[in-house]
Amino acid sequence: MTQLEKQGMAAKQASRVLAIAGSAKKDAALAAIAAALEARKDEILAANAVDMAAAKEAGMRPSLQDRLALDEGRIAGIVDGVRQVAALPDPIGAVTKMYNRPNGLTIGKRRVPLGVIGIIYEARPNVTVDAAALCLKAGNAVILRGGKEAFHSSQAMTAIMRDALEEAGLPADCIALVQDTTRQSATELMALTDYLDVLIPRGGAGLIRSVVENAKVPVIQTGTGVCHVYVDEKADLDMGANIIYNAKTSRPSVCNAAECLLVHAGVADAFLPKAKALLDQKQVELRGCPRAQAILGDCVVPAQEADWDTEYGDYILAVKVVDSAQEAIDFINDHGTGHSEAIVTQDYSAAQHFLDAVDAAAVYVNASTRFTDGGEFGLGAEIGISTQKMHARGPMGVEELTSSKYIIYGSGQIR
Amino acid sequence: MTQLEKQGMAAKQASRVLAIAGSAKKDAALAAIAAALEARKDEILAANAVDMAAAKEAGMRPSLQDRLALDEGRIAGIVDGVRQVAALPDPIGAVTKMYNRPNGLTIGKRRVPLGVIGIIYEARPNVTVDAAALCLKAGNAVILRGGKEAFHSSQAMTAIMRDALEEAGLPADCIALVQDTTRQSATELMALTDYLDVLIPRGGAGLIRSVVENAKVPVIQTGTGVCHVYVDEKADLDMGANIIYNAKTSRPSVCNAAECLLVHAGVADAFLPKAKALLDQKQVELRGCPRAQAILGDCVVPAQEADWDTEYGDYILAVKVVDSAQEAIDFINDHGTGHSEAIVTQDYSAAQHFLDAVDAAAVYVNASTRFTDGGEFGLGAEIGISTQKMHARGPMGVEELTSSKYIIYGSGQIR
Repeated sequence: MTQLEKQGMAAKQASRVLAIAGSAKKDAALAAIAAALEARKDEILAANAVDMAAAKEAGMRPSLQDRLALDEGRIAGIVDGVRQVAALPDPIGAVTKMYNRPNGLTIGKRRVPLGVIGIIYEARPNVTVDAAALCLKAGNAVILRGGKEAFHSSQAMTAIMRDALEEAGLPADCIALVQDTTRQSATELMALTDYLDVLIPRGGAGLIRSVVENAKVPVIQTGTGVCHVYVDEKADLDMGANIIYNAKTSRPSVCNAAECLLVHAGVADAFLPKAKALLDQKQVELRGCPRAQAILGDCVVPAQEADWDTEYGDYILAVKVVDSAQEAIDFINDHGTGHSEAIVTQDYSAAQHFLDAVDAAAVYVNASTRFTDGGEFGLGAEIGISTQKMHARGPMGVEELTSSKYIIYGSGQIR
Repeated sequence: MTQLEKQGMAAKQASRVLAIAGSAKKDAALAAIAAALEARKDEILAANAVDMAAAKEAGMRPSLQDRLALDEGRIAGIVDGVRQVAALPDPIGAVTKMYNRPNGLTIGKRRVPLGVIGIIYEARPNVTVDAAALCLKAGNAVILRGGKEAFHSSQAMTAIMRDALEEAGLPADCIALVQDTTRQSATELMALTDYLDVLIPRGGAGLIRSVVENAKVPVIQTGTGVCHVYVDEKADLDMGANIIYNAKTSRPSVCNAAECLLVHAGVADAFLPKAKALLDQKQVELRGCPRAQAILGDCVVPAQEADWDTEYGDYILAVKVVDSAQEAIDFINDHGTGHSEAIVTQDYSAAQHFLDAVDAAAVYVNASTRFTDGGEFGLGAEIGISTQKMHARGPMGVEELTSSKYIIYGSGQIR
């Protein structure tokens, strides 16, 4: 039995205890975790210093170093996040329907934990605690497999969380960190069907693709967002300009940022200069179709075919003029990633048809795509944004980390 | 582009039309399908005769030949099934929650189709129609990949269904049959991530394992059932004997049949002879632990370790004496497949603890495991019984063939 199989088996055993532990015990454990992370923050900072030294030595890019770095303020933020998760309603145990059958059976559908959740992520040490807290709240054991760059930080935080679990009377194995950070351990985790119920990758497109292609454990695919804003013929053009400016520039690196602006030909002449004036404030590079170029001139880079399918994650925006709302919808369904899509319009029928016909996790009328987020949707914290259609779609909070079981009360019925 | 990719692309296009077609049009198409299958039954019977002749030539086992064979009665049953599916409520379009956020956004969660569903199955021609009708009702296009033994039958029924779709004003490509029945086509279908949203294997354990291990498309795992009946110390022993007799013998080949009887040591002496008297009526072979043997004598075959994990699908029952309800629960969680598990008891606490602690799709008190079925649960027809925890667990009806999307009404909100 490999080390990972041992961890898997221990997590499975722990998950059975956790599944029936009840809200009070889980919340007490989360409170203990928050207190312990606070009390032992020096251990975390010391471990993070080891990771940071190695990162500098290896010449890690500054933006990645920034993701890796912890300080007192960030630890306080992480601790605060744990307390917010503790304060959420417990999703477990609710009976979402219950009914009687003609033969006298009473059938109920009860919300239960998924069991053991695997999280594969990169060099963001905060994910170690955020993900563990959400899984714990929903009654799941978790096996964390973080990137090697953050290993010491994650290891320190995991050790503290495990101590706190035991102190709260729950098995330490409710939270485990994979000790081997080679590619081999990720591959092994993806095949751990005997012990893992679900695998959630959190990170860049390459990581997610690799997990989707290689995992034998069921995966919830998160993340990739090629999001569009379509400014309709009947749009309030100022609103449209504000929305595309916000959707593109408020945080270009995230998955709910817009990558492509579609504009109806009937308003393109009036709208595009208005939008450009705002986008110029952030020096957004525009890559446009010939019609957009004809309107805006040489500042527009000619868009290549690949531009329509690219998640830039940067101050770059593809721009295309379309002849109808239907053309916009078809273009979005062909080139979008099913994440977040918006129409700006004052036309009732266009709005309703866009909501009906666009196939995405979140479809907006007259609002920025940037709202696709667990917090903004009122779910509390989120574990990620599902871009697949099975199990959960869109922002996933604690309720999306649950399954169900049928409970049947009989009095001797046979079939 | 391969033939299958072309079918995938066509199915995806068709699914967009179907997603917004509305209940009346879908139900009219189902009615047209039922009528056409009835009117053109001679074509189906002729195609089935070709399959049956090849099966006999190849020396197919009689039980498999029976699954493959169609006659007027069976076609009438298939047609009746389509009409029952048409009569179900449409799961699509319901907004399962809707709420306002402090910033004025109105956020709704609307039930939508999954998109394109792939079904991989064996030589049961009825699956061709049953699965297509359920997928259609829930607004999904379907790509069917049946076993080569039933190809002519499936081809005839698919052609009839496609004609009926067009007649009803929906794209024929809502229902497609993979034309290549080699292993290669199954492998290709499992990797068709650009066009398939979900893959559902229907068939034996080998087929399901192969799909789970090889698919890159998200899979809903169905089927395998190593189900237990636990007769508690406080059981009504006559009820227990009736339940295990029913669970084992009413249809031993199906996944909700019991494979293992657990009995509390305190009642084993009284219970086992009572159960055996019933099970003897069907010559059920008992494979027991030493304590069961000591009670029942030499008629009990000594159970091997593998017996505790075997889905016999036959008139064979494993029997084990346990010392407590907790030992039964632990044994079930270790050896069950998470399908259906039953306790027979008059003890309130034992019943509640069993419902809480057993990790399975359906957990019963004082009823036979044989009730785990879409029809018996009141879901109408079912596409299968999920034994995984993601997306759906237990019998899956039309509602389980849906996803959701968030629809957001704004008035210019930016973040």
